[in-house]
Amino acid sequence: MTDTSRNNSAEEIAGQIMTGDRNALSRTITLIESSKPEHLEKAHRILDICLQNRADSLRIGITGPPGAGKSSLIETLGLEILKDSRNMLAVLTIDPSSKRSGGSILGDKSRMERLSGNKAVFIRPSPSSGHLGGTSPRTHEVIRLCESAGYNIILVETVGVGQSEISVESMVDYILLLMLPGSGDELQGIKRGIMETADGIALTKTDEALPKSLASSKASCESALKLLPKKHRLWNPKVMLTSAMTGRGIEEVWNDILQFAAMLRENELFEPARKKQLSQLLRTQVDLQLKDAFYNHPDIISAFAATAAAVEENTISPFTGAKQLIEKIIRSPR
Amino acid sequence: MTDTSRNNSAEEIAGQIMTGDRNALSRTITLIESSKPEHLEKAHRILDICLQNRADSLRIGITGPPGAGKSSLIETLGLEILKDSRNMLAVLTIDPSSKRSGGSILGDKSRMERLSGNKAVFIRPSPSSGHLGGTSPRTHEVIRLCESAGYNIILVETVGVGQSEISVESMVDYILLLMLPGSGDELQGIKRGIMETADGIALTKTDEALPKSLASSKASCESALKLLPKKHRLWNPKVMLTSAMTGRGIEEVWNDILQFAAMLRENELFEPARKKQLSQLLRTQVDLQLKDAFYNHPDIISAFAATAAAVEENTISPFTGAKQLIEKIIRSPR
Repeated sequence: MTDTSRNNSAEEIAGQIMTGDRNALSRTITLIESSKPEHLEKAHRILDICLQNRADSLRIGITGPPGAGKSSLIETLGLEILKDSRNMLAVLTIDPSSKRSGGSILGDKSRMERLSGNKAVFIRPSPSSGHLGGTSPRTHEVIRLCESAGYNIILVETVGVGQSEISVESMVDYILLLMLPGSGDELQGIKRGIMETADGIALTKTDEALPKSLASSKASCESALKLLPKKHRLWNPKVMLTSAMTGRGIEEVWNDILQFAAMLRENELFEPARKKQLSQLLRTQVDLQLKDAFYNHPDIISAFAATAAAVEENTISPFTGAKQLIEKIIRSPR
Repeated sequence: MTDTSRNNSAEEIAGQIMTGDRNALSRTITLIESSKPEHLEKAHRILDICLQNRADSLRIGITGPPGAGKSSLIETLGLEILKDSRNMLAVLTIDPSSKRSGGSILGDKSRMERLSGNKAVFIRPSPSSGHLGGTSPRTHEVIRLCESAGYNIILVETVGVGQSEISVESMVDYILLLMLPGSGDELQGIKRGIMETADGIALTKTDEALPKSLASSKASCESALKLLPKKHRLWNPKVMLTSAMTGRGIEEVWNDILQFAAMLRENELFEPARKKQLSQLLRTQVDLQLKDAFYNHPDIISAFAATAAAVEENTISPFTGAKQLIEKIIRSPR
């Protein structure tokens, strides 16, 4: 970040983002990912201004276990998406340096090189630190910024470990689950909870699999889907056979996503779903910021050690200790 | 609860508990489990007075999947514990009416009848509502009240599902994991995380198993234990063969628990472990009470809907919405 950019006001930077300035977008994402309060404050002032610029976007979560071929599928799907020249594509990938991502170092060097040169594409690795699955409340803010910069298709890559505090489900419209077809036990490694959130399933690397094992993998996924509660009353998730190598099934996946979005819009479910997500994100933010406000409050910092000691010495119960501390910082009702 | 007891002061009730009055103990546990703020407040005043009465106790968690025979083992182990006439035993069981406990109705009727008549035994089902695994911060408070009433051995039953927000690990000294010996795949249903917390493993209902399958079950548990990180540097968890029916291995289990406690005490690890638990429980209470204080604050109740609407309409970000709300109720530093 140059000195000039640092001195730009939130209003100026927001204006740059809304005219599609990729550098301004990148710098603001860096501010959002920062741990410094002054960076975060500026980032959120920028974000609040950018919110007035609402792109009509489609957000797609791409999830699946390590090794399922997420990067390759995203690249091929991205090229399919760009066949419609009106589309501007933002790809939020998992930072390959993140320990938990399971991405291979060799594979990451050449990640998505067919997309990265394209001017209609913005690729950004999100640090997944502290958030299993690679999404955090900040991922949602990055999505919003990309939309303000004019990107109307957002692909969000996550590791489908199903334990992330803030699930990708609360940020995207459609979730595509990637699975490697195998010996019939491909469902073993997939948590039931992840399958329940999928709006479509893509079996990947089908060029490497035998036709017979492909058919049985597809059948076992389909019967598993039938056993699960339906996510949307009006939608039946499909199991699609894909190959990033040969291009098989990629158009089918994109059409499935478009049909899903059309179904949501026709039934006036699109906006209510987005609103519900925002309301969930508000509650998540309340939880996070309450803890922050508590542990960083000067009155707590000066009192916590003594209260913890009294609790540890059994002079007061943990309940009473917490109550006494909280009463120090909560204002009386006006 | 009679009118008289309701009018008794916290000081009077605490005095009754500390002289071993079982009715006063039961009534106070009911207050602790209540959702009414005035009940909770009184319960915690009683608890804080009772904390001055510190019994030299041993707390044992009994965990395992449904069907592993927890009730029967607890009953037989309880009788073994009571052979030492100095022992007073409190048993906190999972409320069989709880949906998630998986306890059979038939089995529950006759649960622990050989213990329930004994004057040195206090049995109390804990409602596990809202807390998978059957422990909640309130379970810890019930343990402390039982100790104040003179019970020096506390058995806490939990369903070892490994997803409980507040793990039994933060409340007990020794965790006994019960497993049904089987066809060699008995580890399938057991989450790695639960095995890591065990200080001892009891294979149950061995009278019903073939010697050969018992030996292989024991061997596979032992090799699994070797692969896991050690919980205590100075302790190797044992796999013990037990039967509540024949009494096999019950004395061995109790001796194992006593040896473990002696190991902790000799190495001056007992008190530090208890203190660490209390400090964790303080943080858990802070989290719970902060959320309560927020959502029940009159200023939040009157402002929340408008903020949520602004967030849902994309006028402000979830971050800013949460920040504005929290600032309403956090006092400035003094």
